[in-house]
Amino acid sequence: MLRHSGNVFVLSAPSGTGKSTLARQLVKQVGDLNFSVSFTTRQPRAGEVHGRDYFFVDDATFDDMVARDGFVEWVRVYERRYGTGKAWIQEKLESGVDILLDIESQGARRVHQAIPDAVMVFLLPPSSRELAARLRGRGDESEEQVRIRLEYAKHELVQYEGYDYLVVNDTVEQAYRRLESIITATRCRRERMGATARQILDSF
Amino acid sequence: MLRHSGNVFVLSAPSGTGKSTLARQLVKQVGDLNFSVSFTTRQPRAGEVHGRDYFFVDDATFDDMVARDGFVEWVRVYERRYGTGKAWIQEKLESGVDILLDIESQGARRVHQAIPDAVMVFLLPPSSRELAARLRGRGDESEEQVRIRLEYAKHELVQYEGYDYLVVNDTVEQAYRRLESIITATRCRRERMGATARQILDSF
Repeated sequence: MLRHSGNVFVLSAPSGTGKSTLARQLVKQVGDLNFSVSFTTRQPRAGEVHGRDYFFVDDATFDDMVARDGFVEWVRVYERRYGTGKAWIQEKLESGVDILLDIESQGARRVHQAIPDAVMVFLLPPSSRELAARLRGRGDESEEQVRIRLEYAKHELVQYEGYDYLVVNDTVEQAYRRLESIITATRCRRERMGATARQILDSF
Repeated sequence: MLRHSGNVFVLSAPSGTGKSTLARQLVKQVGDLNFSVSFTTRQPRAGEVHGRDYFFVDDATFDDMVARDGFVEWVRVYERRYGTGKAWIQEKLESGVDILLDIESQGARRVHQAIPDAVMVFLLPPSSRELAARLRGRGDESEEQVRIRLEYAKHELVQYEGYDYLVVNDTVEQAYRRLESIITATRCRRERMGATARQILDSF
């Protein structure tokens, strides 16, 4: 279990639900929230930046990190691997800042095991039909890939009971507002506000 | 324990912290949130409306409701009594709407006993000095009354550990945003979203 003083938010969702867009928007607009950048062996998509969206590494580098126990969690999805670097996350957590992990559901479960008080958030598409439309709209998936992703999405959606919060991405604006509220509310939890409360009490 | 399907939010605070203003603003601006109107034997302040701010009743009526077990909770503060009417709240809860109780800390504890999954929110003044300034600014309190209220506020603040959320009312805007976030986040909790999640899953 990792020691930490900041809040850890895990955002997970079936592929195509829009979590990366929302995660980037949260980190940009919410103060004191850092993005956890994962390592991956997959190729960058158009517009993705190394060190911002992912650390894009080759298989040999990934193998080496696995061998050195360098991941909090890592997982294989289709033929690619994704992992959360242990050194990076440990450093962030110890410094007390809040961090957001944009991560698929297998990885999310392992992060939850490593950090039991992580706030687990699951983003859901409004429906199968809408998810299919979004996957096709992205334009870089074959029909066969869309079919595989929908099947995998169903497999992921079954896991919703392992999460603290469920957010339906019906519109980006509403989903964003809900996610931001979860972060704001978590920061107001009594166990996070104890020092402030004691300080106020001492003023009486 | 009262049966219910809506969310119950309990907002409690030392007198003068600004909870009634915030509670009214929440009920006005947040959708599907009903205000729980308490009964009281105290006199209305300027601008307060019977049936909106409180049900203002005389001592005999209050005694009668106590005798008929008509309160979820009731409490004596200074020389006045305040109570949450059982019939009113039961009806709201069964209809599935969310309700907000603006209530002092003794009453809050009793509501928590009656409704264990109520979301308990405690509003704190930024400091003793600031609370004293606000109480004096209200203009209807003598210095002796201010002193008594500060003493009582300290007594109430000690209870903060019984709450789920602590919100500091440093500015009304920030406190409002935090309270609204707690309501939005609670509505996204997995145990409240199960039916929606199952419906989405069934579409796959």
